Amino acid sequence: MSTKNHDAERPETERQETEHPETDQVGGRSGLSRRGMLGLAGATIGAGVVGLGAGVAVDRAVVGATSSSGTTYPFYGPHQAGITTPAQDRLHFAAFDASPGLDRDGLIELLRDWTVAAARMTQGRPAGKYGPASGPMDAPPDDTGEALDLPPGGLTLTFGFGPTLFRTASGDDRFGIASRRPAALVDLPRFPGDALLEPISGGDLCVQACSDDPQVAVHAIRNLSRIAFGRAAIRWSQLGFGRTSSTSRAQVTPRNLFGFKDGTANIKSEDQTVVDDQVWASGSDGAGWMAGGSYLVARKIRMVIETWDRQQLGEQERIIGRDKGEGAPLSGGSEFSDPNFLALAKDGGTAIDPDSHVRLAHPTTNGGAQLLRRGYNFVDGNDELGRLNAGLFFIAFQRDPRTQFIPIQQRLAQNDLMNEYVRHVGSGVFAVPPGAHEGSYVGAGLFA
Amino acid sequence: MSTKNHDAERPETERQETEHPETDQVGGRSGLSRRGMLGLAGATIGAGVVGLGAGVAVDRAVVGATSSSGTTYPFYGPHQAGITTPAQDRLHFAAFDASPGLDRDGLIELLRDWTVAAARMTQGRPAGKYGPASGPMDAPPDDTGEALDLPPGGLTLTFGFGPTLFRTASGDDRFGIASRRPAALVDLPRFPGDALLEPISGGDLCVQACSDDPQVAVHAIRNLSRIAFGRAAIRWSQLGFGRTSSTSRAQVTPRNLFGFKDGTANIKSEDQTVVDDQVWASGSDGAGWMAGGSYLVARKIRMVIETWDRQQLGEQERIIGRDKGEGAPLSGGSEFSDPNFLALAKDGGTAIDPDSHVRLAHPTTNGGAQLLRRGYNFVDGNDELGRLNAGLFFIAFQRDPRTQFIPIQQRLAQNDLMNEYVRHVGSGVFAVPPGAHEGSYVGAGLFA
Repeated sequence: MSTKNHDAERPETERQETEHPETDQVGGRSGLSRRGMLGLAGATIGAGVVGLGAGVAVDRAVVGATSSSGTTYPFYGPHQAGITTPAQDRLHFAAFDASPGLDRDGLIELLRDWTVAAARMTQGRPAGKYGPASGPMDAPPDDTGEALDLPPGGLTLTFGFGPTLFRTASGDDRFGIASRRPAALVDLPRFPGDALLEPISGGDLCVQACSDDPQVAVHAIRNLSRIAFGRAAIRWSQLGFGRTSSTSRAQVTPRNLFGFKDGTANIKSEDQTVVDDQVWASGSDGAGWMAGGSYLVARKIRMVIETWDRQQLGEQERIIGRDKGEGAPLSGGSEFSDPNFLALAKDGGTAIDPDSHVRLAHPTTNGGAQLLRRGYNFVDGNDELGRLNAGLFFIAFQRDPRTQFIPIQQRLAQNDLMNEYVRHVGSGVFAVPPGAHEGSYVGAGLFA
Repeated sequence: MSTKNHDAERPETERQETEHPETDQVGGRSGLSRRGMLGLAGATIGAGVVGLGAGVAVDRAVVGATSSSGTTYPFYGPHQAGITTPAQDRLHFAAFDASPGLDRDGLIELLRDWTVAAARMTQGRPAGKYGPASGPMDAPPDDTGEALDLPPGGLTLTFGFGPTLFRTASGDDRFGIASRRPAALVDLPRFPGDALLEPISGGDLCVQACSDDPQVAVHAIRNLSRIAFGRAAIRWSQLGFGRTSSTSRAQVTPRNLFGFKDGTANIKSEDQTVVDDQVWASGSDGAGWMAGGSYLVARKIRMVIETWDRQQLGEQERIIGRDKGEGAPLSGGSEFSDPNFLALAKDGGTAIDPDSHVRLAHPTTNGGAQLLRRGYNFVDGNDELGRLNAGLFFIAFQRDPRTQFIPIQQRLAQNDLMNEYVRHVGSGVFAVPPGAHEGSYVGAGLFA
């Protein structure tokens, strides 16, 4: 076999860990990346085997795709990244179920393996030590390779635990953790109008991968799934192509597929007091191991965009409660003006409809409760009538769903004028533990 | 109704066409976009209505998302854009079927309407004159709005005609064009191993939307679908998140979901002779109206990535015929070295397996035939076993599928070592007419 000979010729030094491409200057060659250097060495050896000329010129550096960013966020720390991190542009979200037979030690081992791989990938490195450019030829690479030339892309990986991890629907405490389930990790109630599909709801575990480059996010979920083989399998997953919220004042407010700006009044990471009050779980909330963590609610919300698109502009704006161009509340001002729900229009009614989305979702209507939204637009092909299967993959982080998502969504589900154009088809709730310390793993507190 | 009053207050000048956001300096306000200016005017009026203070300060310009590009490509010209255009990062592809009852005049009108909207959107403008910031309040906006603040993003829209447009499967010549069907627009034969699904194959018309920003591509397909309402409906559609080919020497070779570089030996737009010979249809090919056009073959290729990921590195490289890290042919050299299919390995066999993908797809194995590939990676969720529904949405342009895609694919389908890991599940072939002249429409030659 030619490949075996090829392998045999690889010097041991080449089988070392491949770092992510950097534009190191190696041996005075300007612009030649470390990965390029390994490739060159391999190529020269290959040439030797088949008698072609050695010393092949490499005339280009390996550089990343233009759309990707070199940003990295620390993986280890008091909180998991991907919550108050400025929302990246793209999402790959996956819910996993533990495989039959997985026990407590197996679950801990999986979380340890995921932590190591996530810490590597978020820093722009391959998932494992042996990348495709450095691995032994007779073993599968422990990185799948499709992100090999790409910058880190601002990747964050955020892990969560679903209610079923603590106790299955049939009452089974597979991992000996049922007694440690946080009170805030409630099963979500059925909301009016819910049309949830069981195969795209729930899950024992979740991973939220966000990046400015979708290939980087997909690569991360794929490799975490590969690492989980035999221990956990993807239950459902979702790609999101465009962020629909800003989580930092440095970001422009994006638009959802109704064409409206979304997330204008979102919690911003700069508002430390609000973040501490509304996003991070505290030790005094009842589950000490969750201190510094948060609770993630995901809702796949299908939008009936074809019907929406035939609705008159004035009615669209009445439903939202803001104007479509600027995003200003209909009570006046500009995008970031506070809506005035008492302001009157000429006809004597309120300028903002009492059942508009902006009023029903507003903190003043919800006893001050807020959410840190981090959702994404999605399009999953089309249905048999040619309508795009499109909508919003809603993600929100909060300190306690019982006082935040649930009452807000109850109010929206009952009265929101928008309900005619949306259908909630998927749902999940997850306890997102605090960040791991280097040398430990995500969720270690749960097993301490 | 507050919204009607709001509308009534809008001066006529505001209902004019909204241009795409630009950072014009208007009235000495630095950084205030034209869209921002309209929004400000509307907001001030709103404030007047409800008695809030006028003269609200706008302290930020409307700027686009960070990931999007300001690139524009001309829409009108001898060839349609999106073929030799440097492959953009993201794809939304849609195949449409004509609606029952659509006649020749209706089809021409649809193509005219699509042309006008495409010419606008590719230049970063809304699909129609009345965008959401400028439209009459009692009519639906003629742009859906979600790309309103985004730069043009290098958008190209490329239109094609499927075999069924010329004659339906039941023999119907709905549009009086059956006699003008180009000989090169053949129905693709069934290839060994094909597992085609009829609902994601074929189509009367196709639109390929490519952009560096997925929201821009999605916006374009959505608005073309909206414009087609009652005349044509989406039959199937596909999002692609990462380009898998370079079509210009200025681009880095990307990787497919096997983790290998893809498109190293692709036709590059700089090679004018090759492009003229292999990509553009000529008047002498038999259908004069197609001169300057091309033929698009689309194949949705599902990859069995979980099985692939457990395959040893040496075997992966043997299947492809290149090394995974650098992308060099196994006969030696670097990525852009010509493969030497006669070069021997130490064991006496050829360094490149005769059934490797690189050999079977290579022009020397195919009588010089080449394709201009422009495919994209896709992930459409996962299957019930937790495997990512992932793969390559293959798109290739060529002068004549009878001498290019079909014989190449016959060879691959019979012997490619890669076949164990791929399954062709969708397929389409389309005649892509030449570019339109300003004032005319795409495909006008077919109806002349």
